[in-house]
Amino acid sequence: MNNTTLKYFKQQLPDLAGGYTLDVPDCETKLNQNENAWDWPAALKQEVFERVRDLSWNRYPPFHPDQFVAKVAHYIGADPEQVLVGNGSNELLYAIFVSTLERGRKVVIPQPTFTVYKLLADLLGAEVTTEGLNDELQYDADALAKASEDAAVVVLATPNNPTGSVIDPTDLEHLVNNSGALWVIDEAYFEFHGETAIELTKHCRNLVVLRTFSKAFATAGLRFGCMVAHPEAKPIFAAAKLPYNLNIFTMAAVETAIENAVTLKSRVEEIKRERERVARRLREYSGVSVYPTRANFVLFETEREPRELWKAMVARSVLIRDVSGYPRLGKALRVSIGRPEENDAFLKALEYAMTVVA
Amino acid sequence: MNNTTLKYFKQQLPDLAGGYTLDVPDCETKLNQNENAWDWPAALKQEVFERVRDLSWNRYPPFHPDQFVAKVAHYIGADPEQVLVGNGSNELLYAIFVSTLERGRKVVIPQPTFTVYKLLADLLGAEVTTEGLNDELQYDADALAKASEDAAVVVLATPNNPTGSVIDPTDLEHLVNNSGALWVIDEAYFEFHGETAIELTKHCRNLVVLRTFSKAFATAGLRFGCMVAHPEAKPIFAAAKLPYNLNIFTMAAVETAIENAVTLKSRVEEIKRERERVARRLREYSGVSVYPTRANFVLFETEREPRELWKAMVARSVLIRDVSGYPRLGKALRVSIGRPEENDAFLKALEYAMTVVA
Repeated sequence: MNNTTLKYFKQQLPDLAGGYTLDVPDCETKLNQNENAWDWPAALKQEVFERVRDLSWNRYPPFHPDQFVAKVAHYIGADPEQVLVGNGSNELLYAIFVSTLERGRKVVIPQPTFTVYKLLADLLGAEVTTEGLNDELQYDADALAKASEDAAVVVLATPNNPTGSVIDPTDLEHLVNNSGALWVIDEAYFEFHGETAIELTKHCRNLVVLRTFSKAFATAGLRFGCMVAHPEAKPIFAAAKLPYNLNIFTMAAVETAIENAVTLKSRVEEIKRERERVARRLREYSGVSVYPTRANFVLFETEREPRELWKAMVARSVLIRDVSGYPRLGKALRVSIGRPEENDAFLKALEYAMTVVA
Repeated sequence: MNNTTLKYFKQQLPDLAGGYTLDVPDCETKLNQNENAWDWPAALKQEVFERVRDLSWNRYPPFHPDQFVAKVAHYIGADPEQVLVGNGSNELLYAIFVSTLERGRKVVIPQPTFTVYKLLADLLGAEVTTEGLNDELQYDADALAKASEDAAVVVLATPNNPTGSVIDPTDLEHLVNNSGALWVIDEAYFEFHGETAIELTKHCRNLVVLRTFSKAFATAGLRFGCMVAHPEAKPIFAAAKLPYNLNIFTMAAVETAIENAVTLKSRVEEIKRERERVARRLREYSGVSVYPTRANFVLFETEREPRELWKAMVARSVLIRDVSGYPRLGKALRVSIGRPEENDAFLKALEYAMTVVA
């Protein structure tokens, strides 16, 4: 489309057309989206239906879902006055960016990382700086301090997707305390790592933590996330979030999930063990290098052409993520950790694919 | 909070803290949110559960929910290449504004209208112009043509909330065809009026229509809306919308709603008849003036102090909306049309309240 004929669109937009895209052929083994491989038990699904059945579907959800927010806050270890809820943590990141970014403002998004951060920053016309990860793709405190000096916002995922890297908590505290920028810490993979910055949000007004129920909690289909901010900053972020954003079903499902957290997250330890097993096994493959990871996925590089390798594995009905289009990851692929038999299928398919791809 | 200590927030934001707010005391008769007063039948709720039961809740929804979008498009009379879906039409308006507005750009939002339009425009730093409704709060084509001359975007609700006014289709076509701005037509109350601009979107690239399932469709609790754009413009708006925004339950519920549209919308004719009855009755009250309406609510003015009148009605357990804080509506209240007995309760409570409020 000719941009000049549609002058009301902002200039940078046509480059983004398509936005985040995902290539998803149908495969028996699906290890491409860092999902939890175990579905909800039927009894828990039924419990959600029971909760929703007697609600009035014709009425708007509560304007202030205080009880719901209190339940989420208690579960994640925050105060209710700190918490906002959304349809996935992405919706809350959108509100954070709209509150803080516009043309001419700088945001630090160390690359490579989750694609959506940069897409949203670009939409608002912000200037994106990509420093922050060193040559081994680990967080570099000095580089972050320098890059954040004149920035409005810094976004760090820890563990980071797709690298698996984490920020040292002492480094993070020092960086936040000595910065005039807002630090957004995406803890989507928290449960596979165990370290959180939520305690820090109680004292630091320039820190926000994002959490999701899409990964460890096996709830990707329901789309729920939350954010934790200092109580004085929360109302400003809240003003950039739409009213009634969560529907009654999402709230019922999340309440059920929290009350049954032990069941839904029962596979986390197994996933962590499998992660170590898969990484160990991959390191034994000739010509494969593996990045350290604290999440439910493993990033690895081979000497083969990544797209061809990916296709050869799809032909064996194993779907992983080709991340070779990400900055600095020209040779890399990412595999989510699934059930043991799925991980075996992946290891076998990769071994085979490496023999057929030049 | 001292704004200078949190320099990463954009300047205009602290004024918005709180954003859209709603005062909702618990009342027996709830006529404050323009909802459909009839809940879903139990059998249809059960049908939604059956659809969702066998889905994988641990997996993300489809990246391109093509079948779902095609079903929505067919139902509303648009082509699938024109349609985007969201958690309420507000989410889509947010994407439209992010695609088109930023500091220094002008948006026309004729006042009074739905509060969220201006809140979102302010968040993006756009310059808001409020002309477009004449002294009788009816759309004024000449005023709109003039106000839109140097604007990037014009937002019109038709029927408009809270006035009930509609734009003449011939006026709209002429305005859009002679404008360089993007025209956003919010048809949230379409079913109570019957005229749509969807046909126009097939030819005009600078026109977008918003629809919601929250009103006539009795689905406010599920939060679903959609937008219709020209096929060439849709990808640009799509880039400003988050991936996986709709959860699997919303999609199952909307599919069920569409397949059972006759049942769910069976009350529309009754609501329209009741609207005329309530308006006629109100006009008989001494000191009450009533605005013409094509929606499922009635805007009226009295000579009494609106907040006191509202309170006196709440004391009789009838909740309507005090809109006297809206621009140009200092004496006005808005009542949604509910079941006949609820409308009677409203008429009685108002009659009583006018006797006790000075």
